[in-house]
Amino acid sequence: MTTRQQAVALDDKDPLASFRARFLLPDDVIYLDGNSLGPLTKAAKERLQRVIGEEWGQGLIQSWNAAGWHVMPQTLGAKIAKLIGAKSDEVVCADGTSVNLFKLLSAALQLRPGRRVIVSDDGNFPTDLYVAQGLTKMLGGDHEFRLVGADDIPAALDQTVAVLMMTEVDYRSGRLHDMVDLTKKAHAAGALVLWDLCHSAGALPVDLNGAGADLAVGCGYKYLNGGPGAPSFLFVAERHQNHIHPAIAGWHGHAEPFAFEPGYRPADGIDRMLCSTIPVLSIAAFDAAIDVMLEADIGQIRDKSIRLFDLFVNLVETRCAEHGFQLASPRAAAERGSQVSFAHADGYAIMQALIERGVIGDFRAPNLLRFGFAPLYLRYQDIWDAVDALNDIMATETWRQEKYAVRKAVT
Amino acid sequence: MTTRQQAVALDDKDPLASFRARFLLPDDVIYLDGNSLGPLTKAAKERLQRVIGEEWGQGLIQSWNAAGWHVMPQTLGAKIAKLIGAKSDEVVCADGTSVNLFKLLSAALQLRPGRRVIVSDDGNFPTDLYVAQGLTKMLGGDHEFRLVGADDIPAALDQTVAVLMMTEVDYRSGRLHDMVDLTKKAHAAGALVLWDLCHSAGALPVDLNGAGADLAVGCGYKYLNGGPGAPSFLFVAERHQNHIHPAIAGWHGHAEPFAFEPGYRPADGIDRMLCSTIPVLSIAAFDAAIDVMLEADIGQIRDKSIRLFDLFVNLVETRCAEHGFQLASPRAAAERGSQVSFAHADGYAIMQALIERGVIGDFRAPNLLRFGFAPLYLRYQDIWDAVDALNDIMATETWRQEKYAVRKAVT
Repeated sequence: MTTRQQAVALDDKDPLASFRARFLLPDDVIYLDGNSLGPLTKAAKERLQRVIGEEWGQGLIQSWNAAGWHVMPQTLGAKIAKLIGAKSDEVVCADGTSVNLFKLLSAALQLRPGRRVIVSDDGNFPTDLYVAQGLTKMLGGDHEFRLVGADDIPAALDQTVAVLMMTEVDYRSGRLHDMVDLTKKAHAAGALVLWDLCHSAGALPVDLNGAGADLAVGCGYKYLNGGPGAPSFLFVAERHQNHIHPAIAGWHGHAEPFAFEPGYRPADGIDRMLCSTIPVLSIAAFDAAIDVMLEADIGQIRDKSIRLFDLFVNLVETRCAEHGFQLASPRAAAERGSQVSFAHADGYAIMQALIERGVIGDFRAPNLLRFGFAPLYLRYQDIWDAVDALNDIMATETWRQEKYAVRKAVT
Repeated sequence: MTTRQQAVALDDKDPLASFRARFLLPDDVIYLDGNSLGPLTKAAKERLQRVIGEEWGQGLIQSWNAAGWHVMPQTLGAKIAKLIGAKSDEVVCADGTSVNLFKLLSAALQLRPGRRVIVSDDGNFPTDLYVAQGLTKMLGGDHEFRLVGADDIPAALDQTVAVLMMTEVDYRSGRLHDMVDLTKKAHAAGALVLWDLCHSAGALPVDLNGAGADLAVGCGYKYLNGGPGAPSFLFVAERHQNHIHPAIAGWHGHAEPFAFEPGYRPADGIDRMLCSTIPVLSIAAFDAAIDVMLEADIGQIRDKSIRLFDLFVNLVETRCAEHGFQLASPRAAAERGSQVSFAHADGYAIMQALIERGVIGDFRAPNLLRFGFAPLYLRYQDIWDAVDALNDIMATETWRQEKYAVRKAVT
């Protein structure tokens, strides 16, 4: 591609083009950070107006039943299930990702009695690693968290391993792990697999049951556009559900929460994985946003994601060839998620300069510029314009100004 | 009191009267269920508009820093601290009450090594009991959850007890436990105390540090008007904070969350009790609502709560004397919270009839009609009108109609 007009021509024939109008995007912004916080949909804004003014404001306590608040973890879970190859009664949405990881890892240790080891790869997202560390430390004895390089996972799977915990798409490089292959290898060793779908759900087709996965968790606020800190979802394969006695045993996981019995009796099935009262406002926004995504074809989303990625990489490598950007993501489509990372020694300063021009990506220490591609609202012309801005910044070198020299924490 | 005019006269000289205008209450409703879900404040509605449209919609990922989302658990915690006799760095707000109970109970077991017993009273709210059951079951060995009658608590506190867990105000009867006395007795036995403030915070003065309390948890969606399923808060006395290695070790409790280190290093102080990304929309509503409450004097709130309770009981016992309502709450102000419960064999049907007339309380099995008094928006005339409706229902006996005979789950 050599002209902006060519990008516009791709937009003209994009089968997903109409979805952009469903989002409330700021003017003059090219948003390449939907992998960190998805933008506001009109549907979520309208739904929130209703939940706030009518359901909470007018309906008050009665809205728990009348507006269906009580069943939102399940109704939203059933929607998410469609995106990740799960059955409708295998997914619930509630609590944060770290809390859900804790629930699932402790469940895995129960489901594989006698095995005491959790295995993960050292490229996994830190909170996954921290939760495993906290759990094994709490349980003590011979519980162990075994952290190895991604390529050493198969060798680490022995008869002591209760569960392999992997994030399908690496949050830094965008590397896509092979869910089918790793699940098979874990099962061959007698272990379960917990898949973290934070950077997969809504970005590419996921087939948990097709892969035979046991447990999964994912995040609502990235590609699913659920809103800032939207609750997380968790998946437990049907065959395991009734064998779990939840570590965090709360009243919403009880067989009869409103019987107010003194003794805990877990609900049948996935419901037992619930514990606390859900944050209704945050979960309602998520519920509305996912309806928009379910109107699209996930295959088309993946297809466009691949094209956006390829175009971005191609333009950076041709138009910015002399500026020292090193591709830090797998080049092959089959090996990556929906983001690209470029390494550059001045990555932090360059990202700040991009953001000042309205091209919003993010930076991950020590040197990665990270750009996420969310096909429902991103256009090919946005990719052209983003690389145009990058090229201009590098050419004029304003990013070298001293004000960017101070490295500080970024989100 | 014998006339409605007398009630109106009390409203005219009520020092808290102006606060009612800060709430968006439905017409034709007398809301006596603020102890279950507090109503919408204008402040929360306005704040949510801004968070949705501007901070999420326009600011996107940058709002984590620019709009202060990242520090909301702490800034909101510091506000709550003022209501419960805590220091500003002893409280954070995040996650649900059940999850926070799990964090605190597991912390208590760490803080009292060698002790393996959790004690609570059998009138405690079920989720408190369930969480303790789940935790002790998970830890196994000689860990024990010891459930006794409230009056048998002192006798149950022996050298094996790590922590006494009490809810200050009983959710059914409204009985107020003596925080100072029970804390002293637990400490004399070498145990810690965890106070559940779900039915206290915002309803009566609480002085955690005055009582020497160790740990506490509370709910945002009742008297604090934080919105449906608003996140919970937790308190850890400063002296204990740095001795806790969090059971749920998540990235937001790390010393440097955005350094993305593979190993968990707990943050200093209360911050280590955080784990997941917070549900921003739900926490923002809570934050706005508590600002309204902090404008009021908690002593005046308690004083009016006592008067509303006394008026309600007096009117029920005089005007509805022949209808068989039995007071199921302590009569003495010093022994109760901000709700009253009456036992009646037809309690469920009567409550349904009240709700149809716009008088909203709730029902707790097997036979309790429960009415909560939230002094910031309730008027003395509302109490008159509520009892008037109750009396009318009992006189006309429409509540005996068959349609109310079917008992079903209520919130």
